[in-house]
Amino acid sequence: MKLLIENISIVPMTADNYLIEKGYIVIADNKIEEVGEGEAPTDHYNQRLDGTNQMVLPGFVNTHTHAAMTLLRGYADDLPLMEWLENKIWPMEAKLTAEDVYWGTMLAIIEMIKSGTTCFADMYFFMDDVARAVEQAGMRAVLARGMVGVGPENEQAINESRELVGKWNGKANGRINFILGPHAPYTCPPDYLRRVMRLAEELEVGIHIHLAETAGEIADINRIYGKSPVAHLESLGLFKHQVLAAHCVHISEQDIEILAKYQVGVAHNPESNMKLASGIAPVPEMLKAGIPVALGTDGASSNNNLDMLQEMRTCALLHKVNTLDPTVIPAYQALQMATTNGAQALRLDSEIGQIKAGMKADIILVKVDEAHFIPCYDLVANLVYSGQASDVNTVIIDGNIIMQDRVIKTINEKEVLAQAKRVGAKLR
Amino acid sequence: MKLLIENISIVPMTADNYLIEKGYIVIADNKIEEVGEGEAPTDHYNQRLDGTNQMVLPGFVNTHTHAAMTLLRGYADDLPLMEWLENKIWPMEAKLTAEDVYWGTMLAIIEMIKSGTTCFADMYFFMDDVARAVEQAGMRAVLARGMVGVGPENEQAINESRELVGKWNGKANGRINFILGPHAPYTCPPDYLRRVMRLAEELEVGIHIHLAETAGEIADINRIYGKSPVAHLESLGLFKHQVLAAHCVHISEQDIEILAKYQVGVAHNPESNMKLASGIAPVPEMLKAGIPVALGTDGASSNNNLDMLQEMRTCALLHKVNTLDPTVIPAYQALQMATTNGAQALRLDSEIGQIKAGMKADIILVKVDEAHFIPCYDLVANLVYSGQASDVNTVIIDGNIIMQDRVIKTINEKEVLAQAKRVGAKLR
Repeated sequence: MKLLIENISIVPMTADNYLIEKGYIVIADNKIEEVGEGEAPTDHYNQRLDGTNQMVLPGFVNTHTHAAMTLLRGYADDLPLMEWLENKIWPMEAKLTAEDVYWGTMLAIIEMIKSGTTCFADMYFFMDDVARAVEQAGMRAVLARGMVGVGPENEQAINESRELVGKWNGKANGRINFILGPHAPYTCPPDYLRRVMRLAEELEVGIHIHLAETAGEIADINRIYGKSPVAHLESLGLFKHQVLAAHCVHISEQDIEILAKYQVGVAHNPESNMKLASGIAPVPEMLKAGIPVALGTDGASSNNNLDMLQEMRTCALLHKVNTLDPTVIPAYQALQMATTNGAQALRLDSEIGQIKAGMKADIILVKVDEAHFIPCYDLVANLVYSGQASDVNTVIIDGNIIMQDRVIKTINEKEVLAQAKRVGAKLR
Repeated sequence: MKLLIENISIVPMTADNYLIEKGYIVIADNKIEEVGEGEAPTDHYNQRLDGTNQMVLPGFVNTHTHAAMTLLRGYADDLPLMEWLENKIWPMEAKLTAEDVYWGTMLAIIEMIKSGTTCFADMYFFMDDVARAVEQAGMRAVLARGMVGVGPENEQAINESRELVGKWNGKANGRINFILGPHAPYTCPPDYLRRVMRLAEELEVGIHIHLAETAGEIADINRIYGKSPVAHLESLGLFKHQVLAAHCVHISEQDIEILAKYQVGVAHNPESNMKLASGIAPVPEMLKAGIPVALGTDGASSNNNLDMLQEMRTCALLHKVNTLDPTVIPAYQALQMATTNGAQALRLDSEIGQIKAGMKADIILVKVDEAHFIPCYDLVANLVYSGQASDVNTVIIDGNIIMQDRVIKTINEKEVLAQAKRVGAKLR
């Protein structure tokens, strides 16, 4: 099965190549076989996509979300954090069934595909149903069952996680990666985290955890353990595992050194951190220290969308004003965070995040002929500072055309939207 | 000429009505004649628009931009302010011809209409051509010729402004308002500002000015006049006129009192202030003081788009994280800033900014059936936190359908995009 994309501007996100003004990509089965400038070689292709007036780049990697929280989109906004969580989000989540989570995840996948995301890292519950949605949709994902170490469910979370990893890790032609998801240092005591680490070793999988999100967390962990959350996890040996840490908003220089030393993947969620008023993560400093800082949207109840183009733009703008330095996080670096750094943070950088021969074909075609893309002095600047979800025209994941001309081929979109509306009406 | 919009959710932005879940709007000529719940009255309508799966609200008011700077979109990003201005923007602007500005303005108008803006306040040069574009496009605008009080052009700016106001103010069925645009306190010495004020009195028009944008401006004005820029303008008597002040980033409590006392309209440009690393305006404090704070995109070279939906969202998110208070600028207030406050800041609030009988019909219909709008617990929250430019489906200005189902009827879009590309290639 050979697919040719031709007459297209390519932003490969490789170290040696900023832009191929007009070129082609050959995809064989699920991999990129060849990338070149000018005309494509004569060959037999099963399918050809004409990329005129489009650019192609690696699909976005959303490194931190709770996909099914789309069901809670706009349910509770503009509230103080604890009122939001305790009176609104948790009671609502308690009502969710496995089927609800399936439809909520499908809704999220539609929104992600339509805004150019080809891979996402999810932490939630009813993860068997989440994996099923990912498999059916043709998406790539790194899934984790959220594990809380206090309360009656902690044992169940360990057992379920073991089962889920066994059942799903590496499945769907390798599109599904299943790892462990201890929720946070403040919900998982040291003994529980040690059990999680033993399980991670046994199953040979990584760990996805919330870390240093709020000032309150820093104060609590400091009071109990006499350390910052980052230092606390280091002392437990957690970072000897492959760790994806979401947020890292309130961290010190010493914390940054620790995260850099262990090459912890950091999922930066600027819009969620802004909306919940959590704070501003020291992203330029983390990047300078060589930490693979990537981008995430967080769940739709604290964003309220899953649009990585917006997340890139917000990231680039926020850190400029926060440091009062307009040269911080230029457009290309924001795009790196959304693609190559995302792959690196998820330990998938040998497979995805760049357009070059041998990589899996997770790529997106973006229209560049609308008013907001004209004129074009710098394609990447236009994409990051002016691109819209609706510009994303075609999405290819693992070599399969998942969306073409904005029609998703793997999902009955109408049914999913109707089901999500039904669940919303039930929860209201 | 009677136009009926029916079966639609209405967000009228009036004090007494948050939402009409399903209702109708009757437009007679250029005005809203009736707004109601349920079924529309039986009558003869020349045209009917079915609003199923859509919401209707007042069109967005972009209170500060330099429309033709779309021609410089993405030309120079991520640079220090003075390097950006002196080495990139000014040399580029020096090359622009009147015809270029016409096409750049048309490009901007296309982008604005396609993202739901029905009125904009512009300050630039070759304003005769800008007014011509506004007239032809069917847009509403408050235009001002940028006036710099130092250098050889100061006299010309006064004369041209007088001519332009005479020629254009109130024209195009009242869609064009022409006022005066002294650039900023640091480019217009007191004597020049006094001449501008005399002219404003003579012509009975308002004043659009940049104010307190950067820390450097505060320091400079303080050094020369021993006052803050706001206090300096007050001492000159400028605020006795109807003033629209763009930015107001670096202002004190005393400055806020002054702005409130004179009800100065403030155009807050969060994305431009972030991108240029100018700082964060104390918007919650200004709103609390009763100042009509509205939103603007600024020019596309420092944004890089003219999308008011993004500006609303960024505004709501930025001030939450800046104050560490998630209750600050809730969704509805952000929408007020983009609509009613915009009309107020431009002194057009007796004409536009709300959907109620007697107001001019500047309204937009927005699709609410895409994945990112589902479920719907709160239409306004979904619009502000998750809405996209591409959801804007139909735009009505002064009673005329300017865009229907995303096709602009008043502009040859293809020609404008081709001309803008041509100018971009010339400037490069």
